[in-house]
Amino acid sequence: MSTDERLIYLPLGGAGEIGMNAYVYGYGKPGKERLILVDLGVAFPDMDSTPGVDLIMPDISWLRERVDQLEAIFITHGHEDHIGAVSHLYSQLNVPVYARAFTANLARRKMEERGHDPLVVKTVGAWPEVTKLGPFTVGFAPMAHSIPESAGLVIDSPDGRVVHTGDFKLDRTPLVGEAFDPEMWAEIAKPGIKALICDSTNVFSKTPGRSESDLPDEITRLIGEAKGMVAATTFASNVARVKTLADAGTRAGRSVVLLGRAMLRMVEAAKETGVLKNFPTVYSPEEAKDMPRNNLMLITTGSQGERRAASAQMARGKYRGLELKEGDLFLFSSKTIPGNERGVIRIINQFSERGVDVVDDSSGLYHVSGHANGPDLEALHDLLQPAMLVPMHGEHRHLRQHARLGEAKGIPSIVAVNGMMLNLSGNRPSVLEYIDTGRTYLDGSIKIGAMDGVIRDRIRMALNGHLVVTLILDEEDEPLGEPWCDIKGLTDNGSSNAALTEVLEEDLNQFLMRAGAKTLKDDDKLEGELRRIARQSCQNEIGKKPEVTVVISRMR
Amino acid sequence: MSTDERLIYLPLGGAGEIGMNAYVYGYGKPGKERLILVDLGVAFPDMDSTPGVDLIMPDISWLRERVDQLEAIFITHGHEDHIGAVSHLYSQLNVPVYARAFTANLARRKMEERGHDPLVVKTVGAWPEVTKLGPFTVGFAPMAHSIPESAGLVIDSPDGRVVHTGDFKLDRTPLVGEAFDPEMWAEIAKPGIKALICDSTNVFSKTPGRSESDLPDEITRLIGEAKGMVAATTFASNVARVKTLADAGTRAGRSVVLLGRAMLRMVEAAKETGVLKNFPTVYSPEEAKDMPRNNLMLITTGSQGERRAASAQMARGKYRGLELKEGDLFLFSSKTIPGNERGVIRIINQFSERGVDVVDDSSGLYHVSGHANGPDLEALHDLLQPAMLVPMHGEHRHLRQHARLGEAKGIPSIVAVNGMMLNLSGNRPSVLEYIDTGRTYLDGSIKIGAMDGVIRDRIRMALNGHLVVTLILDEEDEPLGEPWCDIKGLTDNGSSNAALTEVLEEDLNQFLMRAGAKTLKDDDKLEGELRRIARQSCQNEIGKKPEVTVVISRMR
Repeated sequence: MSTDERLIYLPLGGAGEIGMNAYVYGYGKPGKERLILVDLGVAFPDMDSTPGVDLIMPDISWLRERVDQLEAIFITHGHEDHIGAVSHLYSQLNVPVYARAFTANLARRKMEERGHDPLVVKTVGAWPEVTKLGPFTVGFAPMAHSIPESAGLVIDSPDGRVVHTGDFKLDRTPLVGEAFDPEMWAEIAKPGIKALICDSTNVFSKTPGRSESDLPDEITRLIGEAKGMVAATTFASNVARVKTLADAGTRAGRSVVLLGRAMLRMVEAAKETGVLKNFPTVYSPEEAKDMPRNNLMLITTGSQGERRAASAQMARGKYRGLELKEGDLFLFSSKTIPGNERGVIRIINQFSERGVDVVDDSSGLYHVSGHANGPDLEALHDLLQPAMLVPMHGEHRHLRQHARLGEAKGIPSIVAVNGMMLNLSGNRPSVLEYIDTGRTYLDGSIKIGAMDGVIRDRIRMALNGHLVVTLILDEEDEPLGEPWCDIKGLTDNGSSNAALTEVLEEDLNQFLMRAGAKTLKDDDKLEGELRRIARQSCQNEIGKKPEVTVVISRMR
Repeated sequence: MSTDERLIYLPLGGAGEIGMNAYVYGYGKPGKERLILVDLGVAFPDMDSTPGVDLIMPDISWLRERVDQLEAIFITHGHEDHIGAVSHLYSQLNVPVYARAFTANLARRKMEERGHDPLVVKTVGAWPEVTKLGPFTVGFAPMAHSIPESAGLVIDSPDGRVVHTGDFKLDRTPLVGEAFDPEMWAEIAKPGIKALICDSTNVFSKTPGRSESDLPDEITRLIGEAKGMVAATTFASNVARVKTLADAGTRAGRSVVLLGRAMLRMVEAAKETGVLKNFPTVYSPEEAKDMPRNNLMLITTGSQGERRAASAQMARGKYRGLELKEGDLFLFSSKTIPGNERGVIRIINQFSERGVDVVDDSSGLYHVSGHANGPDLEALHDLLQPAMLVPMHGEHRHLRQHARLGEAKGIPSIVAVNGMMLNLSGNRPSVLEYIDTGRTYLDGSIKIGAMDGVIRDRIRMALNGHLVVTLILDEEDEPLGEPWCDIKGLTDNGSSNAALTEVLEEDLNQFLMRAGAKTLKDDDKLEGELRRIARQSCQNEIGKKPEVTVVISRMR
């Protein structure tokens, strides 16, 4: 082994944000490292910064240029921010995808949907089973989380053992799936952990995290006391919670109905892979319509207020023939992710208008987080005693706070955001170089770059409205008739109480009558002048400068 | 007094939402009531539903059509959601505006800014001073809130006494401004309260509200322990908080600097009206530049993450030459209003990247709410013992919960949302009729209706992008050349890897070559066909159907 071989870490997504996880590890001589990719997830668009976009994915240009160095993709668990981009970006990478059975089941469905061979997704067993690829030996060590079969990756390289936690919590009684197993992790730590790459989501939560098993009693009590129809929402992938809700409904003599495509798919995948056992009988919405309303327990998608999900549809009216009414109960067994408040509050108010009683998580009785809190992170640091700590899966503030926890314990720690390539070979993490990273948007059926101006133009049209100016010039470059204006997203009438387009056309025509031959012959100049005058005219009339498209047609 | 005279209540804004308050009271024969308006506020736009809009105001069409019945406008306090629309809508109403001195000071500044006579704003003293107008006698009874001189209105009519609380909390030690005075309110209640129209904002908070005086010790301790520069943000109108922050800075030997126009204006108004006394010396940013960094205490606008406010500018870099660095402290002495989370989190992360330590309200030590919590509302019900309760200033869920509190105590209560006209003359509130209400947007310099389609078009362009199709037809209605396409907010290249506009032009040209004379002669039909084909072609190429503007020019 040459001394200049090195172990590198490069986050392409997920470090400096919550979402869109993608972490590269490499081992080898500089520039010749053999690479593996851990997770390839998506983030979700919003109207503020990404209107019209369908999905946000990491920009994997760096990896694509080194695809011959790439051994494989390893997926820690089945949440969209870890698995969601695999099927969209697979054709650029073309390497095997490794995951545990439940995660692999989800990944294969996605691959099939996008027309890829589902068999490129390989199912691997839990630690101590390992997969050897190039210089790496990778094992999936079970971690408790809010989805079944989450795994921390144990990545062995010639430079030592790295633990990449994935998303986790220290739940000893997670109800569905494996408990956090400190003995197993102590065993894994025995040879020494070179570096711990660690989930930072809940680093600001100062009390130890609670267990999924804290919930069934309270949820059962709440549903047991309900008089009318009951509906509850949670993330479909939180199979343990879905089961808790279903069991609580069954105990109250209610028939369970699953609403929303994701809910049905997740329960199906969990049953197929043996993760979910003893789930109550599920009835269809059609069957439910013949049952007494107070004998029903609906479990729905849409805990984040998504407009098209089952919860939002029920809040607006019927969903598959089922409708909540005065005195019914709707439970959010979920936390609202920051940024989704408006959508969730909208649903609560719509239910309020229908007389439906909404119970949310404000009491803390009906939801627990899937991530390790501050004290839990410290407990893991203590258990694994890593030689260095690299916080991941967090915004900058989370990474910074997490690194502080590490430093306070004497563990060399670093805040590494997307694009910072680290050398993990030394005694403490050091920055090797800064890689250009970014975001790729799935927009309709096309992938576009975040910085290519398409979305910027959409935002500008949303803020300023849009004006089209059309002008035809004859063979002598003289205007043929007057310029024509069309508006969209602008008011019809401005301050002078005439039609806005008429005022604009008048102002543009005035300009054209004065314009010299040189201007009229020059497309760029003419377009620039027409745009400038139109914007100024709008400013005068309506106090706004719109986006302008100028179309000049010449007869010559 | 004829028996068919009646006392009516009609919310035009603020009932079913938090913001945009506007409540009408009337007394007289049906349709002939003499009217007063309580508050005329704004709501703030967001990218999701109101892109490009500057302010949201209540639609006052109903009132405008009855302006000869309107006696006056009464403003309970100076928050934008109560005062903000007065200067924008004044010219439609043209009646005197009554307010207490501090509120009137703010209102006059706004009237002057919009070119109105500031003297239409009349300053009135606190209860027991009253203003008699038509059948009404109105007094401003001091209430504690998060702005000085908030008042509950005591509205006497021939049918009895109504109390309209405005925004309030039961703070006995508010530091600046008047304490809640239970003796005064008991006195006001002695003749009997016909109806209590009551703030509902914090009805879901289950513990009694805390006092402004709970904060100075903790804030002083935090700032006393700070090593570097300190900046803190709160609502500028929370003059008591601004003073607490300034005092804490002074006690720590720091010089106070106010940043942001609103901050300077509010402190000035509070000093002018005698509300604020003993405020520390304020230094300008220019003076501050010559002082040691660790001797500075900056108090800034922008507690809600507003992009253009001082806080956001400091998070991105310098503001007026002042810059926060590694080891400095930034304090949010404020709560994030639901919907503003993204902006606030952005600032926290930007400061984190600069190494600035951000302290927010998660500990509860550095902020208290300005609104009465659930138990406080019940205490006010008990104190005033109203014959009926009409919750206001809340979303539907708040109004409903508040009405439940009332009903549980045996007080006839009703959920009345914007547009529901109530009769308060009977033994319990009853609905008289439903008035069309809505929202008016200030968009640039123009007021537009919420439902007139302008904003809908902007949202569609933001989601779908925009395509302009230009076609010229000759004297025989034959296409002169090929159609021309311009795109905005759409990707240049689609799935066939040619320029999107070329593919579109090709598809449109194919259609034109096949099109019959009948279609080519008919503008509407031709436009419809071109739009349909362009959208389908886009769907094939990029998986999106854009908004389309078709411009057909004819030579004939």
